[in-house]
Amino acid sequence: MSRPMAMSGRIFIQEVVTRDGFQNEPEWIPTSDKIALINDLSHSGISKIEVSSFVSPRAIPNLRDAREVFEGIERVPTVIYSALVPNLRGAEAAIAAGADELNFVVSASETHNLANMRVPTARSLAELRNVLALSGTARKPVNLTIATAFGCPFEGDQSPDRVFSMTESAMSWGAAGVTFADTTGMAHPLQVARSVERFIAQFGRTPLTLHFHNTRGLGLANVLAALQSGAVQFDTALGGLGGCPFAPGATGNVCSEDVVHMLDIMAVETGVDLARMISLSRKLTALVGHDVPGQIIKAGRACDLHPPPVDVRDSLMRIGPPGSVQPANSN
Amino acid sequence: MSRPMAMSGRIFIQEVVTRDGFQNEPEWIPTSDKIALINDLSHSGISKIEVSSFVSPRAIPNLRDAREVFEGIERVPTVIYSALVPNLRGAEAAIAAGADELNFVVSASETHNLANMRVPTARSLAELRNVLALSGTARKPVNLTIATAFGCPFEGDQSPDRVFSMTESAMSWGAAGVTFADTTGMAHPLQVARSVERFIAQFGRTPLTLHFHNTRGLGLANVLAALQSGAVQFDTALGGLGGCPFAPGATGNVCSEDVVHMLDIMAVETGVDLARMISLSRKLTALVGHDVPGQIIKAGRACDLHPPPVDVRDSLMRIGPPGSVQPANSN
Repeated sequence: MSRPMAMSGRIFIQEVVTRDGFQNEPEWIPTSDKIALINDLSHSGISKIEVSSFVSPRAIPNLRDAREVFEGIERVPTVIYSALVPNLRGAEAAIAAGADELNFVVSASETHNLANMRVPTARSLAELRNVLALSGTARKPVNLTIATAFGCPFEGDQSPDRVFSMTESAMSWGAAGVTFADTTGMAHPLQVARSVERFIAQFGRTPLTLHFHNTRGLGLANVLAALQSGAVQFDTALGGLGGCPFAPGATGNVCSEDVVHMLDIMAVETGVDLARMISLSRKLTALVGHDVPGQIIKAGRACDLHPPPVDVRDSLMRIGPPGSVQPANSN
Repeated sequence: MSRPMAMSGRIFIQEVVTRDGFQNEPEWIPTSDKIALINDLSHSGISKIEVSSFVSPRAIPNLRDAREVFEGIERVPTVIYSALVPNLRGAEAAIAAGADELNFVVSASETHNLANMRVPTARSLAELRNVLALSGTARKPVNLTIATAFGCPFEGDQSPDRVFSMTESAMSWGAAGVTFADTTGMAHPLQVARSVERFIAQFGRTPLTLHFHNTRGLGLANVLAALQSGAVQFDTALGGLGGCPFAPGATGNVCSEDVVHMLDIMAVETGVDLARMISLSRKLTALVGHDVPGQIIKAGRACDLHPPPVDVRDSLMRIGPPGSVQPANSN
């Protein structure tokens, strides 16, 4: 690749499994298990954890214990503990529960915002201003996540101008950063590269997070394209949890340990302890009671070698250590 | 991305499902089903089909009908029908059966060649010269596939110099092209980019195929990196069939329809009919009797939209067509 990847600086891995992963799980996950997992993640080199979301418990029953989870977790000073909020009421509850950061969500797509948030995007954006006023008083940073930023399952392609117009609004109103979310896995690498390059050209060092789903197998390719274009913050979910309601059987969020593995073998620094993440992902499989989409827990790391068959070892001893092949002009 | 991808020319998709996919299947696949699938693939815009391999029927029982398959298939003039061969005996059988091209395999790794081919690499390379002598007389091109070119599950990293030394030997002896095969999914994008760039610098327009496995989720990221570096020929398998004996449950070859989908949405021309490939992949699932790793047959194409919920449609009619968001300086 001609452009050197963002390899001199560190890449930041932001874990969303207890929010974006667990919100899709059909079975209740006990509060104590959520707290234990977040505490384990806090000691794994993750830079931000999206702990839960403050939404209607009817809409997302599995996250109805958001407050209890925030109250129960250990706080590691190097980790930001964020909460997803859809409105002012959620923001108030998140601040009261002790969230370090609020992650406000609006969809680029009008249709998706109505389906997901039950309000028009104009109403969500008005609510964002209210949340920013509140968070200013409470001294809590607010990140804006633009869902369906790379495509909507109802509307299809979303205009980049609309996404950037939302971004401009949020920044001018005081948001601390922006996340471009590929909510249902519709992004492709060229599109990602264009978006990241435009963001950096327009907003410089303003924090930008890329949130990819692997729904169509493109997760790591999109992470690669974003890295090449200068992105340094990525949302990922342990085990690749977090399916899509429109794609039964398809994979979920990009998988934390698969992303870290790719970066590790490319010598890109994340600060994340891969062995520990793999062990947490195995525990996660037991916790949710089903297979998870991540590949590394099935295949092992590329550096996890296998002993050769016994007869091969005997042959190897006979022919000696691997040498170079015979030269092209030998006879 | 700063380097424009190889987007002006066409990308060539080479189907390996009936060889690399079927060789790993536990159940016998009837000869007539193999023939029917190859005939369907021949009309889907695929440029080359690796029909079968001429190896010991004890080693790979599922491909023991290689000759019958070659004799039964329809020949579409735009498609090259190739056969994998490990030695001179296999090459003779492949030529007798009417293969258009021989794909000779040697591993970069001494240990892997012993485990896979039961002979040292020096013996395989000597056999390659015999095969090239035979194929010269028979006027059949020979492609050299270098297995474990990006890493060996027994030995780990393979020296690029060893891979390029094998390549030089093969080219000087008259091989028509080379495939770098990531046999057990150990390659990463930077490594792929380096290999493709070095190949093009050293061998110019000599045909180079990249053969990736998605064992660790990196398949499409590696295809992307290869594309960016100028590669134009890729081996893929319908449904992503073709597991790895060391990684039960892990994914197989990069999935044909997932690769074509990625290229389609990036407007990279392949000539492959994606809708037809998706339909063939669904038939494949029924044929092999189990789920396949491909994502597109589960998630649909990114362009396959969903109707919004009825209440959302009502709300959309009330608020009118999607407009731009309120400007940043509005109050």
